[in-house]
This record gives sequence, structure tokens and C-alpha cells, in this order.
Amino acid sequence: MTDSENIDRYFQAMADPYRRGFIERLSKVPASVKELAAPADVQLPAVLKHLQVLEQGGIVISDKIGRVRTYRMRPDAFSAMNNWIEQRQREMNVAFDRLAAVMAEVPEEKDH
Amino acid sequence: MTDSENIDRYFQAMADPYRRGFIERLSKVPASVKELAAPADVQLPAVLKHLQVLEQGGIVISDKIGRVRTYRMRPDAFSAMNNWIEQRQREMNVAFDRLAAVMAEVPEEKDH
Repeated sequence: MTDSENIDRYFQAMADPYRRGFIERLSKVPASVKELAAPADVQLPAVLKHLQVLEQGGIVISDKIGRVRTYRMRPDAFSAMNNWIEQRQREMNVAFDRLAAVMAEVPEEKDH
Repeated sequence: MTDSENIDRYFQAMADPYRRGFIERLSKVPASVKELAAPADVQLPAVLKHLQVLEQGGIVISDKIGRVRTYRMRPDAFSAMNNWIEQRQREMNVAFDRLAAVMAEVPEEKDH
């Protein structure tokens, strides 16, 4: 799998309100599948599928102790996305500065 | 459309390598549809569709002057995502700190 495909999976994992809800909960505290499924108005198989998408997207990890599988955030869950965004933001800032410099050199229109 | 649906569209727009490629180019400099389509190994209708997804995702804006439509980044393209991630990151840090505090109170195992 290429980096690009990994990033696709990553953003794809984010593009769902249930999955973002799980991220919001797991950012605060790890939780078992049962705990995660409890308040959701979706069935357990759908919950498991969402968790699988988050795990494949590199956002969460799970451990199984006995019969209980617990999910938690990967400590580096947002690193790749942050890096990508920061790079774009830097380029945008350079482009805006250049535009501002060009605008500053345009002679002002005279009223008469 | 709800905020949640907007965020879905936003992440969905990011989850494609062609669209991320357009973002990478537009972060550096605005470009016309023709310029954006030139090096892409996809047909013009597909390019237009990708640009529409990016515009609906709140990432780019376009202006039409005469017959030429030019795309550029929204200055706030990454604000909503950054805010959402920062909030999660803060919560994760609190959770890790709490875990570290708990671990510090666990008595060390004795070797004898």
C-alpha cells in the first residue's frame, strides 16, 4: 500500500459522523467495544466495521485481554495529517505574501 | 446542511489523491481549470467533478472572468479541521497525563 493510499484511508475514516464520534470519545479515554456500542444508535456489526475502518486508517489501536477488546487512540493519530496541512498552510502564506507584495506595487487609482 | 455534514464533505474531499494534488498546487498559486487539467491523467469532466467536490467541501473557491474559471484556496481552508484536531489532541494529552499519574502510583514490582 502506498503512502497516498494510507492518506486516502485516513481521510476516509474521518469522513463519517459515527467514526468522528468514536474518535471524540477515545481521545478522552480508552473504551471497550461494548462501551463504544452502548449509546450508539447503530447495531454492533456496524460499530465493529467503523472501528475496523478507524484502525486501518491508523487512527486507533486495539488490544484484546481475555474476551474484551479495548480501543484507544494512537498517540501519533494526527501527526501525518498535521504535517500535510502545515506544509500547505506554509505555501498558502508564501502565496498570500507574494500577492500582497504585488498589490502594494499597483498604483492607486486617482479620483480625477 | 448540518455542521456534521459539512465536516463529512470536507474530509471526503480530502480522501482522494487527485483532489489532494489540486490542493497542493492551489496552495502555491491559483490556477484555471485548463491549467489544472493539463498534467492530470484524468479527463476534463472528472477534473471538473473533483474541483466541484473541493468547492462544496469549503476548501477552494472559484471566480469566472470572461470564459476562464480560476480556482484558489480559501484562506480558512484548514481552520475547521485544525480546530477539531487541536481539541482532540488536547483531550488526548490530558488522558495521557492522567495515565502517567496513575502509573506513577503503581508500586514497583519487587524482584524477591
